Amino acid sequence: MTADRQPQIVRTQVGIVGGGPAGLVLAHLLHGQGIDCAVIEARDPEAIRNTHRAGILESATVRMLADSGVDGRVLSEGHEHRGTTLRFDGENHHIDFQDAVGHSVWLYPQNEVFWDLARACERDGVRIFWSVSDTGVHDVETQDPRITFTDAGGAPREIQASIVVGADGSRSMCRKLIPDDVRQDHFIEYPFAWFGILCEAPPSWPELIYANSPAGFALISQRSETVQRMYFQCDPETDPEDWDDRAIWARLQECLSGPDGFRLEEGRIFDKTVLRFRSYVCEPLRHHSLVLVGDAGHTVPPTGAKGLNLAFCDVRVLAPALVALFRDGDGSRLAGYSEQALQRVWKAQNFSYWVTKMMHARDGESAFEQKRRRGELAAITGSPYGRAYFAESYTGWQDQKYVRYAN
Amino acid sequence: MTADRQPQIVRTQVGIVGGGPAGLVLAHLLHGQGIDCAVIEARDPEAIRNTHRAGILESATVRMLADSGVDGRVLSEGHEHRGTTLRFDGENHHIDFQDAVGHSVWLYPQNEVFWDLARACERDGVRIFWSVSDTGVHDVETQDPRITFTDAGGAPREIQASIVVGADGSRSMCRKLIPDDVRQDHFIEYPFAWFGILCEAPPSWPELIYANSPAGFALISQRSETVQRMYFQCDPETDPEDWDDRAIWARLQECLSGPDGFRLEEGRIFDKTVLRFRSYVCEPLRHHSLVLVGDAGHTVPPTGAKGLNLAFCDVRVLAPALVALFRDGDGSRLAGYSEQALQRVWKAQNFSYWVTKMMHARDGESAFEQKRRRGELAAITGSPYGRAYFAESYTGWQDQKYVRYAN
Repeated sequence: MTADRQPQIVRTQVGIVGGGPAGLVLAHLLHGQGIDCAVIEARDPEAIRNTHRAGILESATVRMLADSGVDGRVLSEGHEHRGTTLRFDGENHHIDFQDAVGHSVWLYPQNEVFWDLARACERDGVRIFWSVSDTGVHDVETQDPRITFTDAGGAPREIQASIVVGADGSRSMCRKLIPDDVRQDHFIEYPFAWFGILCEAPPSWPELIYANSPAGFALISQRSETVQRMYFQCDPETDPEDWDDRAIWARLQECLSGPDGFRLEEGRIFDKTVLRFRSYVCEPLRHHSLVLVGDAGHTVPPTGAKGLNLAFCDVRVLAPALVALFRDGDGSRLAGYSEQALQRVWKAQNFSYWVTKMMHARDGESAFEQKRRRGELAAITGSPYGRAYFAESYTGWQDQKYVRYAN
Repeated sequence: MTADRQPQIVRTQVGIVGGGPAGLVLAHLLHGQGIDCAVIEARDPEAIRNTHRAGILESATVRMLADSGVDGRVLSEGHEHRGTTLRFDGENHHIDFQDAVGHSVWLYPQNEVFWDLARACERDGVRIFWSVSDTGVHDVETQDPRITFTDAGGAPREIQASIVVGADGSRSMCRKLIPDDVRQDHFIEYPFAWFGILCEAPPSWPELIYANSPAGFALISQRSETVQRMYFQCDPETDPEDWDDRAIWARLQECLSGPDGFRLEEGRIFDKTVLRFRSYVCEPLRHHSLVLVGDAGHTVPPTGAKGLNLAFCDVRVLAPALVALFRDGDGSRLAGYSEQALQRVWKAQNFSYWVTKMMHARDGESAFEQKRRRGELAAITGSPYGRAYFAESYTGWQDQKYVRYAN
């Protein structure tokens, strides 16, 4: 082996594979508690920032960003949504989250959450290797796991850590290191997808509208005073280029039409994507020295806006467990991480599945099923108890003890 | 036609086909408001009384029985249940209805509800023909519908009415008089049934237990201090005689087993039945001079205990509509009966369907589905909002204006 192929060694306590929001919020929290960590990420931070991602943040997610010193920008530039609207039979039915459960959500794009975290990590001196390649994770069944990679400059590197965290997203490579006879992959697919657009138009409504209609589901969201994000239900095999602006607006208006005469504000469409989705859970979320967080461990359909929030929930369980391990030598909390995090994951999986089933139309579904779902929507929106049940799930269950990290 | 074949004519305002609880509570309310009616029933009242039927009564059902002067026996002999228990993962999770929504339900057998109604009708002079045969309903698309039948003594009779109410249960003959091109039959079947027993044993628990377990669903109910009613999930094709007491108790104990060591009190089993169930709704519930109430118009699986209560809900809408028609000549409320009653029906259909799906095991279901349902059960039982959403549905939505009928 020649000298220039000998990897440079980085010794740390926690090696984190994946520099998306899940990996960065964990790294930032651990670093603030004096736990040494190092993060690798295959992409370039500017590229991640410029990939449009929607974002509805639970109040606990917002508190984590603000209280841990990441950034208060979510509070100043995000939009507090104190409620949402479920639309069916062509009528709006408002659910006031504050009135129902005393919490709000914040509309703030995921790529901005990422950017705030990346800047905070840089400012506070968290080691992050961007634009890496050839990543390999080794020896996770031992107490000396390693991460090998080539850094942005082309040099081979090796992270030697006590714990490796897989925060490498829904196509996680780390997940596959849990052997087949240990790992359970639970997943379901859906017979529809979302056609998403970004357009230059003023907002059509101050908050999100989840619309169920004979023409299918639509979600009306916002981005700014001049840019809006909207989705409508489509076949998973849809090619976005087959739809021109006129056809898109016709479908969206159809999904939102009703006796109340509601109309969407239209404008030039400058981004079109088809978002396929599925529900997935990996069990367990920990295997010897390897721990999974966020999308690496579980994926939800976007209907309930739970994906990013669930990653933060994982971190709220994992960070104190790692602090207990490294500061106090107490591994018991880490031993319970998978079970504890999965309790929340399954509640969120159920919520996302339920809202997805309730709001979408399916080919060939019976009239019984359609009418039952309208009975369900009436039971949810027509009662303070129904609204509170929905609002609690949407704004995030408050059953996790929130640990404030001083900085 | 010979003289003895000429039917005796009974003229009335409302002719009611079916003398079960739905028909009798309607007749008693109308009679108390000075609306003339006549009821026919194929069975003998003693036979109906002696057919064991479980019963969980919503608070509004209880109020209707007590306030309308039927009988207060439901209050003195029924058992108020201020909550219920959902059992899963071998642990009890209590839902306190009073704490959650301020209402209770009453455990009081349906056949006793029937008996109270039958005695009140007799006492107050409602005309009822028991043990009739050869029933025919005619001319429901005219303003002069007729009911023909042979009375208990063998004499032919004919009821001439302005309105005919079909209260003739889930195998309704009246329903079929709505032409196929008008009537929509919405139904779904379930791949399981309930094996029900009555046994001589003390109560195992003060309230109902709905148990989800790997061995399937079980419902632990009560009847008295010495007689209990229990059910467990079985194949719809099960022959009750294939199960002896030992096998039944083994299955029930298995469904209720858990780390808390819960055990059912066992005793001699003296009644065994297999209860097949399905969800069904007929639309519309009115066609010209014919109106449907109760099981004739809709059937729910027994899981949510909504069947009898839904019949009373129909009557709470229909009785004032018929009073408005006959007293004030105002047919507008009757014209809106179907739509108004169906709003409640679809909420109750959804609740019954939802609880059925949530509590039962299904052959071949995925681990994702099992764990998602446990997430759902945790979200319902682990939160005051979840408990209230369940409790509101179970004790009965309070959205129907309750009209107190003075007597």
